[in-house]
Amino acid sequence: MEYYSEKISRLIAELGSLPGIGSKSAQRLAFHILGMPDEKVKKFTDTILDAKTNVRYCKSCFCLTDRDVCPICSNPNRDKKQIMVVENTKDMAAYERIGKFNGLYHVLNGVISPMLGIGPSDIKIRELIVRLQQEETEEVIIATGSSVEGEATGMYISKLLKPAGIKVSRIANGIPVGGDLEYIDEVTLLRALEGRVTI
Amino acid sequence: MEYYSEKISRLIAELGSLPGIGSKSAQRLAFHILGMPDEKVKKFTDTILDAKTNVRYCKSCFCLTDRDVCPICSNPNRDKKQIMVVENTKDMAAYERIGKFNGLYHVLNGVISPMLGIGPSDIKIRELIVRLQQEETEEVIIATGSSVEGEATGMYISKLLKPAGIKVSRIANGIPVGGDLEYIDEVTLLRALEGRVTI
Repeated sequence: MEYYSEKISRLIAELGSLPGIGSKSAQRLAFHILGMPDEKVKKFTDTILDAKTNVRYCKSCFCLTDRDVCPICSNPNRDKKQIMVVENTKDMAAYERIGKFNGLYHVLNGVISPMLGIGPSDIKIRELIVRLQQEETEEVIIATGSSVEGEATGMYISKLLKPAGIKVSRIANGIPVGGDLEYIDEVTLLRALEGRVTI
Repeated sequence: MEYYSEKISRLIAELGSLPGIGSKSAQRLAFHILGMPDEKVKKFTDTILDAKTNVRYCKSCFCLTDRDVCPICSNPNRDKKQIMVVENTKDMAAYERIGKFNGLYHVLNGVISPMLGIGPSDIKIRELIVRLQQEETEEVIIATGSSVEGEATGMYISKLLKPAGIKVSRIANGIPVGGDLEYIDEVTLLRALEGRVTI
């Protein structure tokens, strides 16, 4: 980066520190930003700071939102009997996008990972238990990822909840629709076989 | 984006308006930024605004720099007899990176493009002529891109300069070193043949 003057190099370095932005992309983005009108750049940085300042956890489900209670939790038409437990706000959005789940969510904001020193108390598990004691939940649907950590976190929560008599389910593993068996990993193939349904 | 609250959606939209950032990348970047410590986000936006405010054209070669005259133009050890004409600051950096060209640059900051309504007076051609009248230039090396516009811009400059008795050259087109003939486009193959050198 020593081929650019200091302020340009610093801009490239900052952009390059973002995930998925390599050094070529960082250069392209930097020159794009330098070529933008001043007011557009100001709007860009204002939007970043505004989001950073105002986005917080929903007091109920702990998704990231700019309100005290997110639109889903405050929607009286959502079915309060079902709570889907997801790792993060992006995963919640993925299920919202299909528009077929009408229950509530609980966003853990992480997974248990002994390797990274993240224990059950570092993610929003205690908050889930508190919610279940206060709300009329009948079923908790575990939708953590299928990574080792995601699976372990799901198992941990399931073991915590079962004694309380709450139905706990897990979203199905299997072949993605349209997926070609040839390219599917072995664990998924095995899960799909184990989880076969009578037709 | 209606699955996120407004300030998050706006952040995703701003990030997604950058070149090469699709909607998935914009979401990942947005949540990455929301997860960064406050002071890191402030440093990020400050760096953007600082660069945008202070980066300007070098008064001599018109590259983007944070000084009045860029480090290359103000370096007494550079050979003032050669000026390489490039489209933009990134292309200048590409040649600086190899460290084998010790002359000066002239950055056009664009190419002539009748389609986009960009004429010779919209890029730094007049400034190049002024420079050549004042400086001790012996050779102008055209290094504009090999797009139709880049070629045409190079030709235009070449025709302007030749009557003044300045040597004008163009960087060679040909097969990239390590390039597989099979995958090289026809125009490049033809140029490589035309430009063959005796060995």
